[in-house]
Amino acid sequence: MEGEPISVLCTPALVLDVDKVKINAQKMIDRYQKLGVQLRPHMKTHKTLECADIMTGGSRRCIVVSTLAEACFYADHGFDDILYAYSVPFDKVERCAALSERLDLFQVLLDHPDALELLRKRPLRDGGQWHVWMKLDCGNGRAGVLHSEPGALRLAQDISETEGVELTGVYVHCGNTYSCRGVEQIHAVAQETIDLTLQFMEKLKAVGISCKSSIGSTPSCSHPVKDMAQLSEVHPGNYVFYDVQQSTIGSCSLEDVAVRVLTRVISHCPHRNQLLIDCGWTGISLDGAGKLPTGYAVIEGHPNLKLVSMTQEHGRVEPSSGQLDYSRYPLGSLLTLIPYHSCAAAAMHSVYHVHSGGRLVGKWMPTRGW
Amino acid sequence: MEGEPISVLCTPALVLDVDKVKINAQKMIDRYQKLGVQLRPHMKTHKTLECADIMTGGSRRCIVVSTLAEACFYADHGFDDILYAYSVPFDKVERCAALSERLDLFQVLLDHPDALELLRKRPLRDGGQWHVWMKLDCGNGRAGVLHSEPGALRLAQDISETEGVELTGVYVHCGNTYSCRGVEQIHAVAQETIDLTLQFMEKLKAVGISCKSSIGSTPSCSHPVKDMAQLSEVHPGNYVFYDVQQSTIGSCSLEDVAVRVLTRVISHCPHRNQLLIDCGWTGISLDGAGKLPTGYAVIEGHPNLKLVSMTQEHGRVEPSSGQLDYSRYPLGSLLTLIPYHSCAAAAMHSVYHVHSGGRLVGKWMPTRGW
Repeated sequence: MEGEPISVLCTPALVLDVDKVKINAQKMIDRYQKLGVQLRPHMKTHKTLECADIMTGGSRRCIVVSTLAEACFYADHGFDDILYAYSVPFDKVERCAALSERLDLFQVLLDHPDALELLRKRPLRDGGQWHVWMKLDCGNGRAGVLHSEPGALRLAQDISETEGVELTGVYVHCGNTYSCRGVEQIHAVAQETIDLTLQFMEKLKAVGISCKSSIGSTPSCSHPVKDMAQLSEVHPGNYVFYDVQQSTIGSCSLEDVAVRVLTRVISHCPHRNQLLIDCGWTGISLDGAGKLPTGYAVIEGHPNLKLVSMTQEHGRVEPSSGQLDYSRYPLGSLLTLIPYHSCAAAAMHSVYHVHSGGRLVGKWMPTRGW
Repeated sequence: MEGEPISVLCTPALVLDVDKVKINAQKMIDRYQKLGVQLRPHMKTHKTLECADIMTGGSRRCIVVSTLAEACFYADHGFDDILYAYSVPFDKVERCAALSERLDLFQVLLDHPDALELLRKRPLRDGGQWHVWMKLDCGNGRAGVLHSEPGALRLAQDISETEGVELTGVYVHCGNTYSCRGVEQIHAVAQETIDLTLQFMEKLKAVGISCKSSIGSTPSCSHPVKDMAQLSEVHPGNYVFYDVQQSTIGSCSLEDVAVRVLTRVISHCPHRNQLLIDCGWTGISLDGAGKLPTGYAVIEGHPNLKLVSMTQEHGRVEPSSGQLDYSRYPLGSLLTLIPYHSCAAAAMHSVYHVHSGGRLVGKWMPTRGW
């Protein structure tokens, strides 16, 4: 179908504007080249080879992944310097060891002494070193040792002193930027995260440990504060697609969003002033819980329409006010949804349809699983 | 890994108890054999060949699907008498025509004159007939012509009078049973749906039209009212797995649920009285919006634990009351989630691990897409 307009696609279909993808990726590359900070793009949003090539500027080096399936997928396709940024999973140590022994540089992450013990018990072949990032929680409230805990410094010391293990760096995810509204708030959270991270790096230095530091999140990395230049790395991911959530946070404008879900009108329901579309939660996910003023997504070019609910293969659309003019939405007509959360929408699709200026140029296939 | 205990699986993993699957399927077969009503099981929950074999008692005939991808998948594997129970999609008419011309019996569904017009304009090869179910809305409030609208009878007449098209039946989905609590309420909604359906069938008869009738939904079909015997067919689907939602509605007990998501503890967060598990929304979906007393799922054997939130690959678990005893949940320990909605949880997995009595017996691969 290459060269055809995207309107020839059967729906629901996830479409990517490759030009926007490239612009989003290049802006991030340029931003951190200028700051002198290593960009380690996260693959979790798209999980494709093509997009990884764009995000790494073709180097196929220095990436971060959320699952071991992604790590294996990229390793199988010639990528290296891969950071599996997920608390070392006790059921996957052998697979992690195999990747460590096979790649030039495979890096893992942990936040608990028991995980370190696990690595110690599985020495790598030929005296190889486990490359370990310690996850630090600087206020995000998900994974990581809390920055203020005495145990944090102790764990970092233990990692650096354990035979067969090397402390590569301190890894911080400032996912708490997701509750920000506007650049000022993003800056405040990023600054606090960086301050706490740098304070921790000072503590490490005081006990003779020197290693890398990395923070990430699309909001903070889209609007870097000056002190970001003091870090070794950043690891954002979502920015390559962006989404409505990111535009609400203030990471981007809605025009920057590279991803859409195409859908068609399949039924008219005049008795309840609604129409049905062929995109249910299998096509875009339930992420966002429908709390946007426009419901579960933004319907491009139709600001008065709201995606009010979804079941497996149906979406219910109604006007925010007034009566639907059904003549504007004949059966079979195409609507374009801008997803609330592109990671979640992409996760529902086994193929992404890629276009340039509305003409199909190819298909990208993500990897899945764990 | 056949013969191994399910605890050897890398997590998150969707596991199916094949014995429960078979019992759930056989009970439904027996129930409708006894009532003298044709069971047409819905494939949307699992989308696998193996489960379709179990639900059809090995006949590979008389099924209903939610996507054209499912229809093609089953047709490619020797299934026939397939009802694609989805408002005829304007972008997929040619694919529907191809299936109609290839199978002994491929059936479509519509609820609008424009869709009928579409079929009329695409006559089938060799004088073949489009087999069409008309979707009637008897109070569910999703797809279908409203039963009380004069247009409903008119559309049925138009279908039966259109050349190259045959009115096969009237199809009703009583999804409004999902708001029921207990068998009495389920019976009330089912009875009302059946009454309205049979009244419509009488209207058809009065204008000389005779065709089949079908209603469905797992709640109503798990607890049939007597008058269900007056219908031609029923088309439930979820019952083969069931889930927490169905047990809350009263369709089944929690013991009947055949599906679980296995997950492992990956982090301890004593500073906020939580632990992290390796199941995020990619492992179980966001369906249910976390509104169960136990959050996004039931954690089997741990009634005091609640899955309070999820991100892409992390779940946060905390006690409903009191302090977590972390010694009970060492890193790497296995927890078993009973999904709120099995259709949604299954949709996140590209392989289902099948076990009998906790020992792995095989893998089932679902089809995906549209």
